[in-house]
Amino acid sequence: MPKANYELHYWPGIPGRGEFIRLALEYAGAPYVDVVRTAGLGPMMAYLEGKRGGMLPFAPPFLVHGKLVIAQTANVLQYLAPRHDLVPKSDASRIFAHQLQLTLSDLVVEAHDVHHPIGVDFYYEDQKPEAKRRAKDFVEERLPKFLSYFESVLERGASRYLIGNRLTYIDLSAFQVVSGLQYAFPRAMGRVSPATPRLSALVDRVAGHERLQAYFGSPRRLAFNEQGLFRHYPELDPPEPTAAKRSGARGRKIRQS
Amino acid sequence: MPKANYELHYWPGIPGRGEFIRLALEYAGAPYVDVVRTAGLGPMMAYLEGKRGGMLPFAPPFLVHGKLVIAQTANVLQYLAPRHDLVPKSDASRIFAHQLQLTLSDLVVEAHDVHHPIGVDFYYEDQKPEAKRRAKDFVEERLPKFLSYFESVLERGASRYLIGNRLTYIDLSAFQVVSGLQYAFPRAMGRVSPATPRLSALVDRVAGHERLQAYFGSPRRLAFNEQGLFRHYPELDPPEPTAAKRSGARGRKIRQS
Repeated sequence: MPKANYELHYWPGIPGRGEFIRLALEYAGAPYVDVVRTAGLGPMMAYLEGKRGGMLPFAPPFLVHGKLVIAQTANVLQYLAPRHDLVPKSDASRIFAHQLQLTLSDLVVEAHDVHHPIGVDFYYEDQKPEAKRRAKDFVEERLPKFLSYFESVLERGASRYLIGNRLTYIDLSAFQVVSGLQYAFPRAMGRVSPATPRLSALVDRVAGHERLQAYFGSPRRLAFNEQGLFRHYPELDPPEPTAAKRSGARGRKIRQS
Repeated sequence: MPKANYELHYWPGIPGRGEFIRLALEYAGAPYVDVVRTAGLGPMMAYLEGKRGGMLPFAPPFLVHGKLVIAQTANVLQYLAPRHDLVPKSDASRIFAHQLQLTLSDLVVEAHDVHHPIGVDFYYEDQKPEAKRRAKDFVEERLPKFLSYFESVLERGASRYLIGNRLTYIDLSAFQVVSGLQYAFPRAMGRVSPATPRLSALVDRVAGHERLQAYFGSPRRLAFNEQGLFRHYPELDPPEPTAAKRSGARGRKIRQS
């Protein structure tokens, strides 16, 4: 393993997007400093305000490694994975891994926007009716569509892992997303999960990994909560719609753009 | 240049996300087939439905090159750029280029969600009040924040281009995003642009490039329209708020997740 003196910069108090990077670092056993939780917000804000050298990040999380300042979660994981044997060596595998990570990122944005459909500059309490409407579409249409995609990837690969025959960073990320969805939308996930047995088994397999178990038991692991990406608001996780309500759907269309 | 027998698969009739890939291919002078516009939806749907080999795409656009099936716009661009001299050779430059592309992708999602805040499964007409509310936040807060970030990148780089001293695929993508925003939000862009002179100059520089001019004059280039990512709905591009309306903002917060 190369010298790994990583600094992770992310908001404190929520797992959020930073957790995808933390999971990779923890699974790899790579030494890192969780800067904000160690030294407060000052150093992170200095980077965001352009007061430090290197590439300017738009938003956390970002990783500092030597002179490199690397932002965008998927970009950071793509940088870390080959350095810590978290992805196979072939170009094809790495391209596919990154594609899956970006698709998980899209799902994360949609899961987040369920509670923030009008914008991140307003509190959830100021967009509750809109959130309820978006939640219905998310749990009935988008969530099953995304999860069945990952189920298909597992089925086509005929492996216990998403890529190749060993655990990669994509399995860690899929674990985190599914765990977040289970936290936020337990009822919807209860309805969808029976159709995605391979994905459920993958999540259990990752969860039971020895090194991750040690991490999960440590204070470094942050619990999901109502400040983060995945929030449990029972009103956004409705019980199964009745047949009458179902037939009332109007204006459905095929997504294009 | 390596043999470049590329197939681009994307929805017809809209520039959308496919246009970022088309711009790179056109600027590079790389031979490609725009499959759906040549052969109809059949071949694309076969890939999406898992009836073809290779990596399963979640959604268009995707690129087929030999045995590789590469989805996710930023992933495709990252694959094409080094093959066609559209990005510098250093790792640091490529990481930063990808970071900027992913940040542009985030902006594109937010611009799209202005007209689809409740979900992509409903028509705009079924979410107009919500869209109007989201539009206000987008044009007043998010748009200036994103564009001033790219202005800062240009300022720090002290170059006429976003990365290094030559045009890269990121400049093409930034051009496309800014052009789309000018189409969709002419009033808001009129207010923001004076604060981003370097970005405006970059967009003009890209627009005037000889090879792109030939492309823009061809039937291969698709115009923005109200089926795509960037839509011009005047009601979502409000005139400048009055001082009284401005002071009425409530519930503003610092973004965290």
